[in-house]
Amino acid sequence: MNENKIKDLLRKMTLNEKIGQVTQLATPFFKGASDQGQITGPMKDINIPENMIQLAGSVLGASGAKETKLIQKQYLQDNRLGIPLLIMSDIIHGYKTIFPVPLAIGSSWDLQLAEKSATIAAKEAAVSGVHVTFAPMVDLVRDPRWGRVVESTGEDPYLNSVFAKAQVRGFQGTDLKHDHERVASCVKHFAGYGAAEGGRDYNTVNMSERDLRESYLLAFKAALEAGSELVMTAFNTVDGIPASGNKWLMRDLLREEWKFDGVVISDWGAVKELIPHGVAEDEAEAAAKALSAGVDIEMMTDCYANHLQSLIESNQIDTSLLDEAVMRILELKDKLGLFDHPFRGADEKREAEIVMCPEHRQVARELATKSCVLLQNKGGILPLHPTRKVGLIGPFANNNDILGPWSWLGAKDDAVTLYEGIMKKVPASKLVVANGCGIDTSCEIELAKAIDVAKQSDVIVLALGESSDMSGEAGSRANIQLPHVQLQLVEVLVELGKPTVAVLFNGRPLDLHGVVDKVDAVLEAWYPGTEGGSAIADILFGEVNPSGKITMSFPYSVGQIPVYYNNYNTGRPKGAINAQERYVSQYLDCPNEALFPFGYGLSYTSFDYSNFILSSDTITPDKPLTIKVKITNTGDVAGEEVVQLYVRDLVGEVVRSLKELKGFKKIYLQPGEEKEVTFMLTEEQLRYYHADLSFYSDEGKFEVYVGPNSRDVMALSFELRKTKGE
Amino acid sequence: MNENKIKDLLRKMTLNEKIGQVTQLATPFFKGASDQGQITGPMKDINIPENMIQLAGSVLGASGAKETKLIQKQYLQDNRLGIPLLIMSDIIHGYKTIFPVPLAIGSSWDLQLAEKSATIAAKEAAVSGVHVTFAPMVDLVRDPRWGRVVESTGEDPYLNSVFAKAQVRGFQGTDLKHDHERVASCVKHFAGYGAAEGGRDYNTVNMSERDLRESYLLAFKAALEAGSELVMTAFNTVDGIPASGNKWLMRDLLREEWKFDGVVISDWGAVKELIPHGVAEDEAEAAAKALSAGVDIEMMTDCYANHLQSLIESNQIDTSLLDEAVMRILELKDKLGLFDHPFRGADEKREAEIVMCPEHRQVARELATKSCVLLQNKGGILPLHPTRKVGLIGPFANNNDILGPWSWLGAKDDAVTLYEGIMKKVPASKLVVANGCGIDTSCEIELAKAIDVAKQSDVIVLALGESSDMSGEAGSRANIQLPHVQLQLVEVLVELGKPTVAVLFNGRPLDLHGVVDKVDAVLEAWYPGTEGGSAIADILFGEVNPSGKITMSFPYSVGQIPVYYNNYNTGRPKGAINAQERYVSQYLDCPNEALFPFGYGLSYTSFDYSNFILSSDTITPDKPLTIKVKITNTGDVAGEEVVQLYVRDLVGEVVRSLKELKGFKKIYLQPGEEKEVTFMLTEEQLRYYHADLSFYSDEGKFEVYVGPNSRDVMALSFELRKTKGE
Repeated sequence: MNENKIKDLLRKMTLNEKIGQVTQLATPFFKGASDQGQITGPMKDINIPENMIQLAGSVLGASGAKETKLIQKQYLQDNRLGIPLLIMSDIIHGYKTIFPVPLAIGSSWDLQLAEKSATIAAKEAAVSGVHVTFAPMVDLVRDPRWGRVVESTGEDPYLNSVFAKAQVRGFQGTDLKHDHERVASCVKHFAGYGAAEGGRDYNTVNMSERDLRESYLLAFKAALEAGSELVMTAFNTVDGIPASGNKWLMRDLLREEWKFDGVVISDWGAVKELIPHGVAEDEAEAAAKALSAGVDIEMMTDCYANHLQSLIESNQIDTSLLDEAVMRILELKDKLGLFDHPFRGADEKREAEIVMCPEHRQVARELATKSCVLLQNKGGILPLHPTRKVGLIGPFANNNDILGPWSWLGAKDDAVTLYEGIMKKVPASKLVVANGCGIDTSCEIELAKAIDVAKQSDVIVLALGESSDMSGEAGSRANIQLPHVQLQLVEVLVELGKPTVAVLFNGRPLDLHGVVDKVDAVLEAWYPGTEGGSAIADILFGEVNPSGKITMSFPYSVGQIPVYYNNYNTGRPKGAINAQERYVSQYLDCPNEALFPFGYGLSYTSFDYSNFILSSDTITPDKPLTIKVKITNTGDVAGEEVVQLYVRDLVGEVVRSLKELKGFKKIYLQPGEEKEVTFMLTEEQLRYYHADLSFYSDEGKFEVYVGPNSRDVMALSFELRKTKGE
Repeated sequence: MNENKIKDLLRKMTLNEKIGQVTQLATPFFKGASDQGQITGPMKDINIPENMIQLAGSVLGASGAKETKLIQKQYLQDNRLGIPLLIMSDIIHGYKTIFPVPLAIGSSWDLQLAEKSATIAAKEAAVSGVHVTFAPMVDLVRDPRWGRVVESTGEDPYLNSVFAKAQVRGFQGTDLKHDHERVASCVKHFAGYGAAEGGRDYNTVNMSERDLRESYLLAFKAALEAGSELVMTAFNTVDGIPASGNKWLMRDLLREEWKFDGVVISDWGAVKELIPHGVAEDEAEAAAKALSAGVDIEMMTDCYANHLQSLIESNQIDTSLLDEAVMRILELKDKLGLFDHPFRGADEKREAEIVMCPEHRQVARELATKSCVLLQNKGGILPLHPTRKVGLIGPFANNNDILGPWSWLGAKDDAVTLYEGIMKKVPASKLVVANGCGIDTSCEIELAKAIDVAKQSDVIVLALGESSDMSGEAGSRANIQLPHVQLQLVEVLVELGKPTVAVLFNGRPLDLHGVVDKVDAVLEAWYPGTEGGSAIADILFGEVNPSGKITMSFPYSVGQIPVYYNNYNTGRPKGAINAQERYVSQYLDCPNEALFPFGYGLSYTSFDYSNFILSSDTITPDKPLTIKVKITNTGDVAGEEVVQLYVRDLVGEVVRSLKELKGFKKIYLQPGEEKEVTFMLTEEQLRYYHADLSFYSDEGKFEVYVGPNSRDVMALSFELRKTKGE
């Protein structure tokens, strides 16, 4: 359809039909549905008349070709104008083939593979009848207490931006109308949700507009530049006004300034939550505020459905506001090709072929190996020799709860556990296993068995972690150590004095005291997804050399939070010279630095950085800087290295971060091989938001750093000159 | 002098003489000085030519009548125009008679006594020759990791405001020119310093302007309304720009909007710290930025002294900026009567009579008793019966480190320890004492002795806490429990099964796990000052009934920070109804609530609240609300109760806090006595900053609460109507 045809359609619609379009309900409300999706908010409180349910323009949480086709068919039978139902679902890190959690994908620094995983997720979802996924989540995160850090790619605005783009490309492809193996992308949560106070989910967010723009909005802008068709609102307040009723955020910024013309959808129940937030007295006011502020679709509450009619009829809300929203929704349906193909990609036969096919599982395995981060490897204990007898111990030894949060369509039974992974690498006689304890429960018998297993073994592999419901939405923790019982298990087992490797399954940077100081090696495996056990075994036995690097700082302790690499210097920075002085910015009982910094991760080989040179000591708007550095694999095995580029603007009108990531390259080197890595840096990359929120660069001195992580870098200087003729 | 005479004087001054006026140096730079004051920043880096030292307009840290007179005398001998030296010092909670620390004074909720303590501090300081004190500190604080919470009166904007006013009145009186027993007040730290990220001192601050105005600026405004002559800048950034170079803060807000015409002084070294902050390239730029932004006096760095001349001569800075600053400084000297009386109050004879006189010590004792907060009293174990044998154990049993941070002129030897205090209450045979351990060190022999002492006793009094350098400036802690060794001491001693009372000496709300769950009673004594031991003994033995209430929430754990009473509801508040649901704002492993909430504190008697009534169910701009509640002493002893009034605006354009303190009354009741307490609430008190920063009230529903603390309240409703004719 062209725009005129859509406008014609709009003109034919009754007020109630329009209100139906801006209402989204979960699967159980629809005829033909059996699956419930994942319920993350109130269901029973919804009180919508039967006729409005039939008119609802979109459904949340449906999946499976047979079911989605049935729902669509029944829906269209009742639909006067033949407007198809839009089917949306949370396809976050895979549909049924589950990839590692997003925080793990971030650790891969592999944009191609991240895009590929999104393409596969889209393919499996589309063939099952899904049209829109509520992804990517691009919230910048600095507080590991918050459970949803697991859904983010980390603490860096630039890295989040490039991952946002890769994921949007992967989900959407380039032609949603005709490529029915793709789904539309809905970037979330707009905005600032990652800064929930105290890391407590749904909590208040407070920051200045400048900080919001500088740190938190960049990845949203990137996702929209990549073409994300939808935006989802956040649960939190933004400077005292809930995001889902925030006119400045959605009208002034998103629509006016950024020119976004796609669909804005609320998060689950967020429109009605304007009432408990305390900015709306009742549902009618919530509806009026949300629609005025720019929420096109209300998800899973009934404020629009029950109150827009009277608001419009009493002229409290202008019809044009509703028409605008409906137009955008109809346009989205058209963009997806739904008017011509209401079942779109849904196809039971293709579904059976594609979903969880070996190719998809292979990509999941590859991405899982790239997402693992080797945090410690004392004495080169890893990789393991298959001749040594492995004692695999811990609550994750043979546990399939490794898909992580937001994998509701993935089956745990399909997941390869660590035990199953290792079994494929060693003869049965070389592997003994015991749980030792539960995730958060102790058991004398299990502990005794674990000690026995450990005593029989040459090397102990401790599989530890958080259950998947200890992170994710509403999964905030005030204590971010491993559960106490697991720390006790570590303590008991290391007393045996055997070489010990910890493999961690978790959804956030943990306080690793009680682990790193006890064991020899630590491999952060996150929630690695369907092929997790195979991937980790690949790494443990050296078939794959680990190359992941953390994208969120691991704190020294919870009392140090927030700790992130791109902080400010302060007026009294603690340094080598004044380390013994009192009146510097520090804790009396804890370092300022993270335990493991952003960008950190080890390899089975070693890389040497040399020949770090700049093409010039000045940069101008017309003359970018070329930055070169030579990387040499000085070890015995081939491996990948993520070479990182950081910049510091030494003097700004507004204080600049100590380091800002400006680029990275992932390279593969054979033993002894060397490669020159080249970065380009432009004046544009040096721009920032000034006090009046204008965005430009300042002339003056800069430092530029390259290194294997944000801490261990080499430094050079250059100057930015903007005067003509230089 | 009148203004014209001061202008005449200004005209006679050379450029260097003017630059001298805007430079402040510490005592050691001046002839005749011996005392060093308290050094809280770099000294040796200062590189000022001898002639500029002679011209410096003010001195920091001088005290003692003999010495200040000598300094002034020598200074004036070298001063061409006879402009007297301004003598400033940190007189924070007492001069030599040390009162409880400000966080303790806040806990008294006693404005009269707080004012009296400031009057006494001023009197002792003035007679020793001090002209200006760097107090009150009015920073709002929500993060107990920050060491400087000890200098604040707590987490509430209103309470901080009334204490700010009381302290300014106490320091300044009403006639600085003729009342030479008063000193000028310098309110600090402007602004937002209390929000240092992670509670790490000097760290970055980020918040919106709305939040700054709503929470952090109110007490500054109050202090200035009370007439505070000076303002000190903060070390931190405010939205990315260091406070000491922040034009918006000092020019637009403080000067233009608030019409402040007094002196702005930097904190120690804060002008030069614009360089490490990264907003100035060198000292010249730091000087230019600070003076342009509105810093009249540079404290303890040399940017003004070494660079203003060339900046002015090269027209980079306009002379008028310097003249303005000098005028304000000369006016302040004139206001203090220094042109006529350069020695002002300094008087050795009076000093000997006044300083530490019994009357002053008596007020210190009274304020210390009012500042103690009884947090727990299981089985009414307190007060102690003098017939029972007391085992006084712990590192604070007979420790005189109870003056707290910022008491550099107070002598520990003058402080009454807890042991000395209790000795006066019981016969020697009824008191045995042991340290048990050091503050942060263990000792087998001491521990054995403590166990022995405990075994001999009928009741154990545990004197525990932080050494005074564990809080205060640069005293941030990432772990806010008592030092581990003290928790071990508690654990060992409670195993004896004897009645146990913990008395705590500390400078911040602590995580009290390991104490409250082990002992019967907990008395928070803070750093109680010179008469601390006597005051605590008064309470322990029931001669004074405790009435203090905490003004900063005690967190459940460090992982829950920030926790404060006046938070927002969020869109998914956790309540009684949904307490079992996952998708609410909560931690999985920790309650949302503080362990002890704002306003909490027990008494040896009990108070009943009844007959809570409002004069009307509506309030209008012309018709305030009268709120009444009857309080009855239902216990056996007389006591004081702090009756607290809170309000909640149910629906705002911007989310309003769940509770906001709007008033309080401290009343004294004999056993069985009842009193009606009356509050007035006006429309003006319901105003707040809207999204566009305009300040007005919204019509609609409100709730009003009265109670003994911020948690345990009774509630009524009213409506605000603003339409005329109602």
